[in-house]
Amino acid sequence: MPGLSDAQRIAWLRLIRSENVGPRTFRNLVNHFGGAAAALEALPDLARRGGRTIHVCSTAEAEDELAECARRGVRMIALGEPDYPAILASTEGAPPLLAVAGAAGCFKRPMVSIVGARNASSAGRSFAQRLAHELGGAGWVVVSGLARGIDAAAHAASVETGTVAVFAGGLDCLYPPEHADLASRIVEDGALVSEMPMGWQPRGRDFPRRNRIIAAMSLGVVVVEAAMRSGSLITARLATEIGREVMAAPGSPLDPRCEGSNALLREGATLITRSEHVIEALGPLIDRGPPPPPPISLAQAGAAGFETPAAADDDRTKVLELLGPSPATIDDLVRQSGAQPRIVQVVLLELELAGRLDRREDGRVALRSVDAFV
Amino acid sequence: MPGLSDAQRIAWLRLIRSENVGPRTFRNLVNHFGGAAAALEALPDLARRGGRTIHVCSTAEAEDELAECARRGVRMIALGEPDYPAILASTEGAPPLLAVAGAAGCFKRPMVSIVGARNASSAGRSFAQRLAHELGGAGWVVVSGLARGIDAAAHAASVETGTVAVFAGGLDCLYPPEHADLASRIVEDGALVSEMPMGWQPRGRDFPRRNRIIAAMSLGVVVVEAAMRSGSLITARLATEIGREVMAAPGSPLDPRCEGSNALLREGATLITRSEHVIEALGPLIDRGPPPPPPISLAQAGAAGFETPAAADDDRTKVLELLGPSPATIDDLVRQSGAQPRIVQVVLLELELAGRLDRREDGRVALRSVDAFV
Repeated sequence: MPGLSDAQRIAWLRLIRSENVGPRTFRNLVNHFGGAAAALEALPDLARRGGRTIHVCSTAEAEDELAECARRGVRMIALGEPDYPAILASTEGAPPLLAVAGAAGCFKRPMVSIVGARNASSAGRSFAQRLAHELGGAGWVVVSGLARGIDAAAHAASVETGTVAVFAGGLDCLYPPEHADLASRIVEDGALVSEMPMGWQPRGRDFPRRNRIIAAMSLGVVVVEAAMRSGSLITARLATEIGREVMAAPGSPLDPRCEGSNALLREGATLITRSEHVIEALGPLIDRGPPPPPPISLAQAGAAGFETPAAADDDRTKVLELLGPSPATIDDLVRQSGAQPRIVQVVLLELELAGRLDRREDGRVALRSVDAFV
Repeated sequence: MPGLSDAQRIAWLRLIRSENVGPRTFRNLVNHFGGAAAALEALPDLARRGGRTIHVCSTAEAEDELAECARRGVRMIALGEPDYPAILASTEGAPPLLAVAGAAGCFKRPMVSIVGARNASSAGRSFAQRLAHELGGAGWVVVSGLARGIDAAAHAASVETGTVAVFAGGLDCLYPPEHADLASRIVEDGALVSEMPMGWQPRGRDFPRRNRIIAAMSLGVVVVEAAMRSGSLITARLATEIGREVMAAPGSPLDPRCEGSNALLREGATLITRSEHVIEALGPLIDRGPPPPPPISLAQAGAAGFETPAAADDDRTKVLELLGPSPATIDDLVRQSGAQPRIVQVVLLELELAGRLDRREDGRVALRSVDAFV
């Protein structure tokens, strides 16, 4: 399968970088309008009908970002292109475009995530190192978040066998800054990846998104030392949600840094004390055949837009009245509003682009509470 | 149910203290001959026909032991008597007589065992203390083996709420000697118990027997820090065999003292980091109704012996020929020898008393290999 054309890549980048367009909205728009270019054309009107004006990424902005990528040796790989990590492509919410620095070839090998506490104990770091080193030696690519503590220990111990660091910000916004040397060593046999634009300084809310990619990039996640309410527990929860194996190293009941990982074990995570245990758990998952196709077909990437019926004002009013802070299924909205399914979809896209709609994991939708209680 | 008469207690003690008579042989003899006194009468002939002469405990020896017990405030409680621990009574291999110093009343409360490494870490000891203290406060009696490390920590932290120490030797043979003070505090609200005679110095092989009683005296066993091939793992295995809950505290994968306990967790033991977890696991097992009746009925304790047909020499030869180092079922021996079932039982008792027979947990029997290969 060939990659995107330059024009298609610009259209994809413009769409995903436009205001209120995340991976799911991107997919809904492309699927609805039959392509990114057609979606871009419809975008301003859709958002306006949803209730506000949004910033649509211009061609010049997209070209600037691609130029900055090229300058820094970063490739922007599209969902569906051969170098896109297949295991990530098969998940809901996979970024349409992934910024990659380094050796994308490592995505072809089996991947395992190792995450844990930033303030990890010496024993925790040593264990993460041993695990990462042995898994690397056994042919696995170690995925982590380049954070202090466990993440850094895991990357450092597998840098020679290939390791993938997922950034919460742009690839030119390294965090924490003291890992610059580690990052420069990672790109030799592994890769740095991000779904965020160049120049994007990571904020708190970007880390759960990053953690979802860490979970999605691997067959399973090993948690080494994690406190309650820690980012590593979020990664483990996200991993469970998308059907990834969750493993954890045991730790002293008296160490608060192990409370979260021990809690995972009580909830059924696989207990890991050596690399063989990880291989035993994940090995059977390799080569289960090709992953399901990505949720966006490249064939659609440049297709002309369909003629989409504009939603009549009273259809919009009906759908809006049916929506509230409690999630509703789209089928119910169609039935109860009496509107055409495609009309309901358009109204939902409008609200989504205007930042007024929440789409749940189960496909149900709800008005954002700020909207619902005004 | 009343207790044994003095004469019955002497007969029971003589029988269990006779050479090659353990709890299982005791039960087989009492069940076969209808009482301990009748079994004692038959004992010398049985053993001789099995191939050797054994020491039969004399009335004087038994009286001396009971006198020594009385002098030291030790009661000898018989299986089936009201103060015998009900949970122990319901297990295969329960000692017919249990020497008890202290407050037997604590056997009426729910019991939980806490065992672990003698060379436990400071954190391991602290955790065992916290666990034992909290469980004691919640009404549980903590059972352990009075060993150094975890055992001592668990006893010390629950001494005020009642704790039971199971000895591998006689109750006058404290091991290790530095726990004399701890033992003297235990008897105030808890108990020291042993199946071994007064004066018996514990040898290596007595510890697994002791560990079986620890497991059998409780609804479940918590293992805190146990190396591979440690006594605590043996206790956990015995606990599994008799259907007790096995729990373990997690520990660092880098600490060899936690390898065994972590391995138990991988095998399915319940992970415990706080006392609530233990109560959650064992609470539902309290008051499941009365335990099954003990395998020896007190009604039989003083019954006159049945007329038992003596085994003819050729029956004995046939059974002996069928036996070998591979275990055989008694049904097969009966069928293949053509002898009466009771005759086969007598031949097996003869061999057992002569120290030539192994009885497996599943009821099958085999010749001891020294015998088989002569």
